[in-house]
Amino acid sequence: MAKLYFRFAAMNAGKSTSLLQVAHNYEERGQSADLYTAAIDNRAGADGVNGSGRVSSRLGVTRAANVFNDTTDFDAIYHTKPHPSCILIDEAQFLSESQVTQLHRLAHTSSTPVICYGLRSDFLGNPFPGSKSLLTLADDLEEMKTICRCGRKATMNVRLDEFGQRVTAGAQIEIGGNERYEAVCARRFYTGDCN
Amino acid sequence: MAKLYFRFAAMNAGKSTSLLQVAHNYEERGQSADLYTAAIDNRAGADGVNGSGRVSSRLGVTRAANVFNDTTDFDAIYHTKPHPSCILIDEAQFLSESQVTQLHRLAHTSSTPVICYGLRSDFLGNPFPGSKSLLTLADDLEEMKTICRCGRKATMNVRLDEFGQRVTAGAQIEIGGNERYEAVCARRFYTGDCN
Amino acid sequence: MAKLYFRFAAMNAGKSTSLLQVAHNYEERGQSADLYTAAIDNRAGADGVNGSGRVSSRLGVTRAANVFNDTTDFDAIYHTKPHPSCILIDEAQFLSESQVTQLHRLAHTSSTPVICYGLRSDFLGNPFPGSKSLLTLADDLEEMKTICRCGRKATMNVRLDEFGQRVTAGAQIEIGGNERYEAVCARRFYTGDCN
Amino acid sequence: MAKLYFRFAAMNAGKSTSLLQVAHNYEERGQSADLYTAAIDNRAGADGVNGSGRVSSRLGVTRAANVFNDTTDFDAIYHTKPHPSCILIDEAQFLSESQVTQLHRLAHTSSTPVICYGLRSDFLGNPFPGSKSLLTLADDLEEMKTICRCGRKATMNVRLDEFGQRVTAGAQIEIGGNERYEAVCARRFYTGDCN
Repeated sequence: MAKLYFRFAAMNAGKSTSLLQVAHNYEERGQSADLYTAAIDNRAGADGVNGSGRVSSRLGVTRAANVFNDTTDFDAIYHTKPHPSCILIDEAQFLSESQVTQLHRLAHTSSTPVICYGLRSDFLGNPFPGSKSLLTLADDLEEMKTICRCGRKATMNVRLDEFGQRVTAGAQIEIGGNERYEAVCARRFYTGDCN
Repeated sequence: MAKLYFRFAAMNAGKSTSLLQVAHNYEERGQSADLYTAAIDNRAGADGVNGSGRVSSRLGVTRAANVFNDTTDFDAIYHTKPHPSCILIDEAQFLSESQVTQLHRLAHTSSTPVICYGLRSDFLGNPFPGSKSLLTLADDLEEMKTICRCGRKATMNVRLDEFGQRVTAGAQIEIGGNERYEAVCARRFYTGDCN
Repeated sequence: MAKLYFRFAAMNAGKSTSLLQVAHNYEERGQSADLYTAAIDNRAGADGVNGSGRVSSRLGVTRAANVFNDTTDFDAIYHTKPHPSCILIDEAQFLSESQVTQLHRLAHTSSTPVICYGLRSDFLGNPFPGSKSLLTLADDLEEMKTICRCGRKATMNVRLDEFGQRVTAGAQIEIGGNERYEAVCARRFYTGDCN
Repeated sequence: MAKLYFRFAAMNAGKSTSLLQVAHNYEERGQSADLYTAAIDNRAGADGVNGSGRVSSRLGVTRAANVFNDTTDFDAIYHTKPHPSCILIDEAQFLSESQVTQLHRLAHTSSTPVICYGLRSDFLGNPFPGSKSLLTLADDLEEMKTICRCGRKATMNVRLDEFGQRVTAGAQIEIGGNERYEAVCARRFYTGDCN
């Protein structure tokens, strides 16, 4: 039996880099990894958050990935082809609750670990659906650390408008480049500054 | 500035023991701890889950605690008396979402750490309101481990009826002694056995 | 296969309490635990650090335990009687390097987890023999937190003389009650105060 | 005050990638990072383990770094130029004990975090000098996971000769490409296979 992992972080911590490293580690040892990313972003092409079915690191590393949306049946896919050594999912905050349950059950009834990377909370401090379920079910929760502009650990995200001003209302999902989001410490999130 | 901690576990891992140890550690060093537990259980008396406003360990250690319910204003209490060195909350899965936000903000705008102990998920694998918010906001997530009857890590809880049979429908909260709940591994949770 | 765990802390964090809770958890689920503590302290009787072959918690819980010294052969003991569900070792900083290797191999060639509790460093900031090997080999390193008098995390230990003055020379092992040791933050360890 | 971090792993887990990501994160937020790597390897040029004063990731990312050897005085360097926002050290297993103490004190008497990446143990399961001290003193120990050829977590390293056969005697330090070392699970380390 294997485990379900959730490696969570605020924006721009290095989640995609870490996912690409894990895929490399598996393949270097003669094993295989199935990569997925969310299909809700079409900025860069047809279907991928980080571009068109790609996982892309801010360090410049990138590779193709499958995409998932709310109708993706991970169980069916798993059982209709040779099993991968592991399943790696980027932008996992966009998984549905039932998909997380499916992946949790899959890990515990097969020998295939499932490693999910994603945001913990949105720009208002609320969880995404996938994050809520992953935080509830994952066998292994690992925080990937990044820093606020003050140097403290950044655990929260704020959304900015085109003038760089903080926005405190709007839809949970609004795809945007880094210029629209900033990872901040909790003190800045609540008080507006870091002091 | 201080931090919000969430130490979560399945049933019967030793959460109350750990809370009582932390209180002891603070007091032994000349510092103070404010203890809280949930007011939803009146089996043992007026107001406490673990008895009447008490935190009680399965190892036999017990002490009085304040009780909280949905109307408890932790911020108001904090500001109307000398500040404790830390705030310790048992049965924290019963906190409301707004109470968790309040405690998170309190930790980051004062020098008082808030350490919460609670269950992660209910008998159906869904989060409690307090757990969901603590998992989303806590600066430090720490799993307290316990074991399934098979020896694997128990991360899930099942509810049993009076004949010891598993129950898969009912209200989220049903206060009961240990005979009504069992901490199990995820494999047992999904398949009914540990093999 | 099982794992070797090292749960380390500074003085007076609650290591023995946690060990006793784990033993309780195993036994409550119908499983068994073999308890050990170090034989180098004879203050309280013949053979135990925490008294005569006892693990004793500062919360008041206590129970009998086997004792180990440098000649204890954990492997031989394991194979000459029914296997326990787990092995729990208190004061594990006093294990020898070869004993830690033996326990590490035992965990990985049997299904019996070995959970060790101990100090990380001595009053000069140097590791104990057992700690050095456990930190190097354990599959799972878990810090048990306690606080300095200033409220920060205490990671270091200082030794005090009978007048409460810090001592910076002497033998690594000098058994003494809490009045001879204080867990402190690293800043206090290096600078003599917490500011 | 800041902290000393030790992020340890077996061979080929992604330590250098992670270090490069952290440097990127700091710089992206307008902060600075001082990078170091060990000077004991001259395969690729004058002075760097990963090449000539470079930190290089197996994912293909690389950048220049300062080099350290046993005589490097990190404290003196810190105080003779503008302070960096953080200090990042690769191949930290090659630090001396006194250098680790120096870096620990530096973190706790300044506001500059020190983040070290390195191996935990050598091909015989013994700690390197730097690893031993970092495991003893670091405020934050974080394992970076990688896998054995069997899919289990790899925590140990074995050295191979030019025919791919395991070597169990020799000097602790023998610089070699990945073809000379393999990260393995503890079961394989002790028994020679993974079953």
